[in-house]
Amino acid sequence: MTRQPWQEVARIAQEARDKSIELVQPPVPDIPADLPLNVSGIPKQLLTPAEVEITETPPEVLVESLASGKLTSVEVVNAFLRRAGLAQKLVNCITELLPKEALERAEYLDNYLKEHKKPIGPLHGIPISVKEHVAMKGRGLNAGFVAWWDRVASEDAHALQILWKAGCVFYARTTEPQTLMQLACSSNLYGETVNGFNRQLTSGGSSGGEGALLGLNGSVLGLGTDIGGSIRSPAANNGVYGLRPTGGRFPFDGLAAARGAQGIPAVMGPMSTSRAGLRLLMKTALAAKPWLKETSLFPFPWRDQESYLQSDSGKKLKVAVIWDDGVVRPHPPVTRALKELADKLKNVSGVEVVDWKPYKHDYGWERIASLYYCDGAHDDYDILTDGGEPMLPLSEFIIKNNPYRKRLQMEDLWDLLQKNEEYRRAYAKQWNDTATGLDSDGNPVGMVDVLLCPVGPGAAPPINEAKYWGYTAQWNLLDYPAAVFPVTRVIPDVDTVESDYKPRNEKDEHNYKLYDPEVYRDAPVSLQLVARPFDDEKVRFPV
Amino acid sequence: MTRQPWQEVARIAQEARDKSIELVQPPVPDIPADLPLNVSGIPKQLLTPAEVEITETPPEVLVESLASGKLTSVEVVNAFLRRAGLAQKLVNCITELLPKEALERAEYLDNYLKEHKKPIGPLHGIPISVKEHVAMKGRGLNAGFVAWWDRVASEDAHALQILWKAGCVFYARTTEPQTLMQLACSSNLYGETVNGFNRQLTSGGSSGGEGALLGLNGSVLGLGTDIGGSIRSPAANNGVYGLRPTGGRFPFDGLAAARGAQGIPAVMGPMSTSRAGLRLLMKTALAAKPWLKETSLFPFPWRDQESYLQSDSGKKLKVAVIWDDGVVRPHPPVTRALKELADKLKNVSGVEVVDWKPYKHDYGWERIASLYYCDGAHDDYDILTDGGEPMLPLSEFIIKNNPYRKRLQMEDLWDLLQKNEEYRRAYAKQWNDTATGLDSDGNPVGMVDVLLCPVGPGAAPPINEAKYWGYTAQWNLLDYPAAVFPVTRVIPDVDTVESDYKPRNEKDEHNYKLYDPEVYRDAPVSLQLVARPFDDEKVRFPV
Repeated sequence: MTRQPWQEVARIAQEARDKSIELVQPPVPDIPADLPLNVSGIPKQLLTPAEVEITETPPEVLVESLASGKLTSVEVVNAFLRRAGLAQKLVNCITELLPKEALERAEYLDNYLKEHKKPIGPLHGIPISVKEHVAMKGRGLNAGFVAWWDRVASEDAHALQILWKAGCVFYARTTEPQTLMQLACSSNLYGETVNGFNRQLTSGGSSGGEGALLGLNGSVLGLGTDIGGSIRSPAANNGVYGLRPTGGRFPFDGLAAARGAQGIPAVMGPMSTSRAGLRLLMKTALAAKPWLKETSLFPFPWRDQESYLQSDSGKKLKVAVIWDDGVVRPHPPVTRALKELADKLKNVSGVEVVDWKPYKHDYGWERIASLYYCDGAHDDYDILTDGGEPMLPLSEFIIKNNPYRKRLQMEDLWDLLQKNEEYRRAYAKQWNDTATGLDSDGNPVGMVDVLLCPVGPGAAPPINEAKYWGYTAQWNLLDYPAAVFPVTRVIPDVDTVESDYKPRNEKDEHNYKLYDPEVYRDAPVSLQLVARPFDDEKVRFPV
Repeated sequence: MTRQPWQEVARIAQEARDKSIELVQPPVPDIPADLPLNVSGIPKQLLTPAEVEITETPPEVLVESLASGKLTSVEVVNAFLRRAGLAQKLVNCITELLPKEALERAEYLDNYLKEHKKPIGPLHGIPISVKEHVAMKGRGLNAGFVAWWDRVASEDAHALQILWKAGCVFYARTTEPQTLMQLACSSNLYGETVNGFNRQLTSGGSSGGEGALLGLNGSVLGLGTDIGGSIRSPAANNGVYGLRPTGGRFPFDGLAAARGAQGIPAVMGPMSTSRAGLRLLMKTALAAKPWLKETSLFPFPWRDQESYLQSDSGKKLKVAVIWDDGVVRPHPPVTRALKELADKLKNVSGVEVVDWKPYKHDYGWERIASLYYCDGAHDDYDILTDGGEPMLPLSEFIIKNNPYRKRLQMEDLWDLLQKNEEYRRAYAKQWNDTATGLDSDGNPVGMVDVLLCPVGPGAAPPINEAKYWGYTAQWNLLDYPAAVFPVTRVIPDVDTVESDYKPRNEKDEHNYKLYDPEVYRDAPVSLQLVARPFDDEKVRFPV
């Protein structure tokens, strides 16, 4: 079959997106011709005060207003449709809006509330944005590939089925990069998604559309996916919250994916403008007992009762700080954020702050980079060829220039998986060795509860420069749950270059040279909390 | 390097085994030259009354007597050493006994109890037998291969470390078949392990030595491994209890294995002369929080509190019976056992008995048989060649004659894993569809709690005839926990041939023709209980 040129497919894709946005009423406002780098203040200027108020309300408050009837779903959904449409114009984060379906659904929910005097479920009437990667029945499922532009999902992903049943409204689908394997968000279908706080920086990725949209309050609750940092990088880059759950905690069925990795769990997870938003999505998804359908899921609800969250040392929460992973040194604003937060924590009674010595994170990267493309990326190359599209710079970085990519025989795979297992044991041992004593059964207690660490070696990097995955991929390799949260912004006057620093290696040098405070101005600086496998509930602070 | 002929390696292996048995004092009794087929009554005739009493006490009672000092560990361990040595002479189930180490350990524990007035742990002083497959520091680790005869384990398997800390005594290592992939127990190193109730039948396998030893009360607690029925087949064949836990429940680190399967979790699990023995080992292993070292393990203790074990329908325990898997019809004694038990259950208040329609179990076998040898069994062929040993009939059956064995490319593997996932969803759906209503969150309730089914298409088959894995491997494929327990024995007068039966297919015909009541005389007939993933605690009856 003769394919259209990729440029033509992209034109069709973008036209379809634009048409979906044109359906929003009142029409999405035009944006100024001469945009500043930081466009985060613009929606406030162009939307109505009511729309601004709604879209800047955190999701845990919105659901209450919706459940009580203080707000209608129609007005909430329409405010987010308008703000999402505007975000598209500002940062290019949308693949399609769903105004017709969303408003119909909102109306149905409003009527339901009127009739039954109670909400339909815990997410009654609230809009949720979804990364294109997640299957939505009857809609495209392209994973950022031109060749897959016209693939259509035959049913909703399991997570969407659950959230729908809980009463939410799906209203926006968001961008992702070519191959899904970028900590940035550039595809030939939709171009580049940029950062709303500084448009010369990346939104991050691969859930980059979600990150950028949430960052501009075009959404308060979203779904992303993560196999190397794809929820956390965009959440961090845009100053919002994101959780990469442990593999097997959150429903996973129904993704478009080029296959590739073996032994590294890809996961779906929540992103939100608030910490409570993450909890709301986790709690709701797990209350539906997703393990009854997906039997590989762990059969447990969200456990945020105090008894579960207690530190194993009885009282103290023990936080270990990773200041630097020993491979690539974080930029000054990240170190400042760590220091500010660590100092604050030291003053919280019941919290103990210690240092963490990263255990061979460079070796960790070698392990995960070896497993990302077990087929030597043949699948990806085939799909790119099929679409007739060029490989983009950051796809080249992780595929073509990945020194660990290799077509594996089964025996090679087993060797790699064995090495992983050994590395996981060694990392767990270091964690166990932080124990201060033994309980009555002879088991260690007083161990570190959570790690506090950077999300990347800097704030959102400039376009095409997001090349160090170590700070996020490390936890995918180990399958530890990890959440990110905003702490500060880059302040050029404060976060000056460490002028006497001597880079340790090529990656470190690349990152060091990248840092120019002016280039990063206003970029959100976020941090990451990491817990042990299945302790997803513990990646939160009592502050 | 020039290898010795395999016969010479086998001679050395068997000589080492015999020498280890010769160290037992008083010496293990000689057995009659003219053995009956059923040798299960012989140990009683040749051991002292005290030894008989000790070895025929269930483990949950033994641990109490040991903890209170009513019995010393030295007398208990010595009784089991003597009975295990005798079992070796009768059914060929031992690779080595450890009299010196075991008695030293027992003496240490006896002294500990005297000095501290309390046991060292929940397994204080009790002997545990272990399949050779499980690494024991400084000892051989051959997985049934001649080439691996001189491989030595550098440390104890994780499970052994835990059980040791809980106070047990390791005293016997037991046989396993060539390649570990037989539901029987024949190797060139040690020959054939046979069934103590009828020596013309197999012990089952691959944990065949454990099964045979437990069947003759040469052990009350043992450790086996299972990737297709290897705990359950020998437990069932020898009339004892065995549990294949869900993957990720029981510590797993430290096995000798030829690699092969991908996507099918191999597990370690308990075997015992009593149901309570299974619980004792699970509870003890999980109380040690093995997930702190092996981070892929599910971080939960053994949950046998009533609240957890309650049926989701509130009161009734709903048992669904698989009379026949639709592929190979069970022999008459198995059907009789099912019927007897189902009838008994129907009279228990609070228990509901329904039928289960097996969902494509033939397709299930195709799935798992496709994944057993992802490398086309190259690894196994290499090791066999390296040892210069012939491939035994049941290794040929599962390797050479396995129509689904194929060296896979990564893409093939992904296709297979995807099909598995779909099959698992479809199976779960059938289970969910047994719901009788919805709870207040809209989740299904009143579903089946456990399946009751055969462990195989008959009692222990004759030597070299164990060729139908479907009744056990089905649950490995789905990763459902499954336990087996004895119900009755083959009674030739009662369990007559179904003379008018027309076999459905070649496998069914093989099994049908196999059945001659006289050949199976006295063979234990066991059944299997199956629960949903992670519901290991639920595979037990309230009767």
